[in-house]
Amino acid sequence: MHIDILTLFPEMFDGVLQNSIMKRAQEQNAFSYQYVNFRDYTINKHNKVDDYPYGGGAGLVLSPQPIFDSIHDIKEKADKPPRVVLLCPQGEPYSQQKAEELSKEDHLVFICGHYEGYDERIRQELVTDEISIGDYVLTGGELGAMVVIDSVVRLLPGVLGNAQSAPMDSFSNGLLEHPHYTRPADFRGHQVPDVLLSGNHAKIEEWRHYQSLKRTFERRPDLLKDRELSAKEESWLEEWKNS
Amino acid sequence: MHIDILTLFPEMFDGVLQNSIMKRAQEQNAFSYQYVNFRDYTINKHNKVDDYPYGGGAGLVLSPQPIFDSIHDIKEKADKPPRVVLLCPQGEPYSQQKAEELSKEDHLVFICGHYEGYDERIRQELVTDEISIGDYVLTGGELGAMVVIDSVVRLLPGVLGNAQSAPMDSFSNGLLEHPHYTRPADFRGHQVPDVLLSGNHAKIEEWRHYQSLKRTFERRPDLLKDRELSAKEESWLEEWKNS
Repeated sequence: MHIDILTLFPEMFDGVLQNSIMKRAQEQNAFSYQYVNFRDYTINKHNKVDDYPYGGGAGLVLSPQPIFDSIHDIKEKADKPPRVVLLCPQGEPYSQQKAEELSKEDHLVFICGHYEGYDERIRQELVTDEISIGDYVLTGGELGAMVVIDSVVRLLPGVLGNAQSAPMDSFSNGLLEHPHYTRPADFRGHQVPDVLLSGNHAKIEEWRHYQSLKRTFERRPDLLKDRELSAKEESWLEEWKNS
Repeated sequence: MHIDILTLFPEMFDGVLQNSIMKRAQEQNAFSYQYVNFRDYTINKHNKVDDYPYGGGAGLVLSPQPIFDSIHDIKEKADKPPRVVLLCPQGEPYSQQKAEELSKEDHLVFICGHYEGYDERIRQELVTDEISIGDYVLTGGELGAMVVIDSVVRLLPGVLGNAQSAPMDSFSNGLLEHPHYTRPADFRGHQVPDVLLSGNHAKIEEWRHYQSLKRTFERRPDLLKDRELSAKEESWLEEWKNS
C-alpha cells in the first residue's frame, strides 16, 4: 500500500510513522508513504493556502487551487485512481469495518486541513471518503489521518505478529473485551479471580465470555442492538436487567 | 494545566506536541507536559513491563507493578489527586462534552498501553476515566492520548485565536457545520452558490442554517434525536423526509 499525506505540518507525523509497528511495517514493505506539503502547489505570490469565507464569518477556509493541483499530480503518477480521504468532523464516523475496507486498497490519499474549514468544491470534486474519527473537535486533520493510517496498516498482511494481535481486539466479535490479568496472582493484596488460576479451560472461556458481554451491557449497550444473541447470552442479559 | 504521559514510546508524541497550536499553547504557559517511561519503574531483572495472561490466550498484558509505582510517584508530588485517564477500546466513547469537562482540570495523567492488554487491577485501583476515542483498534494508546490532549488543550483559555476557533466547530451547537467557500467565485467552472455572494446577511444565515441541518439529517441523523427543534427546523425536516 502507498499513502500520500497532504499536510502543512509533515513534521507532526514522523514520531507516529517512524516508531514501533508502523516503522516495522515499512521495513517489511507493507506500506510506504510520502508527504505532500500543498503549500508548495500555491500559485499566489505569498503562498497562501487559505482565505476568508464567502458570506462572512470568523475563521479561514482552505482554497481549492493548491489541493486540486496536488491531487491532480498524484493521480497523474498513479496507475489507477486512489481513494481520497478527507478528515473532518462532518464525515462518516470511522469504524473497524471502515478500517478493514480501506486496508484492501493499494493507494490512499489523506487531505489534512489545519484549523481551517475546507472549500466545499474540494469535497465535491476530489474526495471519495469523508471520515470523522469521533464527535470531538481537533486542531487539524493530522491526528485523524494518523489514527486512520495506524488502524489500517496494522491490518495489512504480516504486520502484526500473533503477540500483538489478540488482546486489544475489542469490536472484532462485536463485544468489548473481557478483563485481563497477569502475574502476580496477589499484587499488594489485589487478587486475580480464582477461575483464571484453575486450569479449567472450559470454565475460563465461559468466565471470559460472561465478562465480555457484561462489560458491553454495562458500558456500551448500543453495541448489542444489532447483535444476534445466543440462548446463554439472552439468559445472562435477563439476569442483569432484573438485578 | 499539567499533563503526565505514561508511555513506552515518548518519541511518538513530540511531533504532535511540539508544533503549531500545541507548541504555542506551551509558550503561553497554558499547559506543560512530562513523559513517564514506566519501563524505568520496573523492578525485575530484564525491565519487562508485560507478561502472559492468566488463563491462557495470545498476547501480552501490562503488569501492574510499573504502572502502580509510576502513578504513586506522580501522586506523591501532586497537591491533589489528578484525573488518571486510561486509553482503551472498552472505555467511554470520547465526546466534545468530555473534552470540555477535562479542560477544567489542573492535572491529567494518561496511561498508554502499546498493543498489550491492561492488567485489570490497573483499571480498578488507579484509573478515574477509561476513554475510547472511537470504535476501531489502534496499535496502542498513544494516538488516543494525543487526540484527547489536542482536543482539551485547544479549549484552554487563550489558546485559540478567533481565526482558528470558528470553522471546525461542528458539535458545539449539536449540528454538523454548513459548507464553506472561499475565492475564487468560479474555480475552473465550479461555482460558489449565489446567496453567499449576495451580501444579504439574513439570507446567508438562513442558507447556512438550512445546509447545516440538512447535512446533519443526511449524514448523522443520530445527532438530531435529543435535539429540541425549532418550528422552522421541523418544517425543513418534514420536507426532506417527504422527498
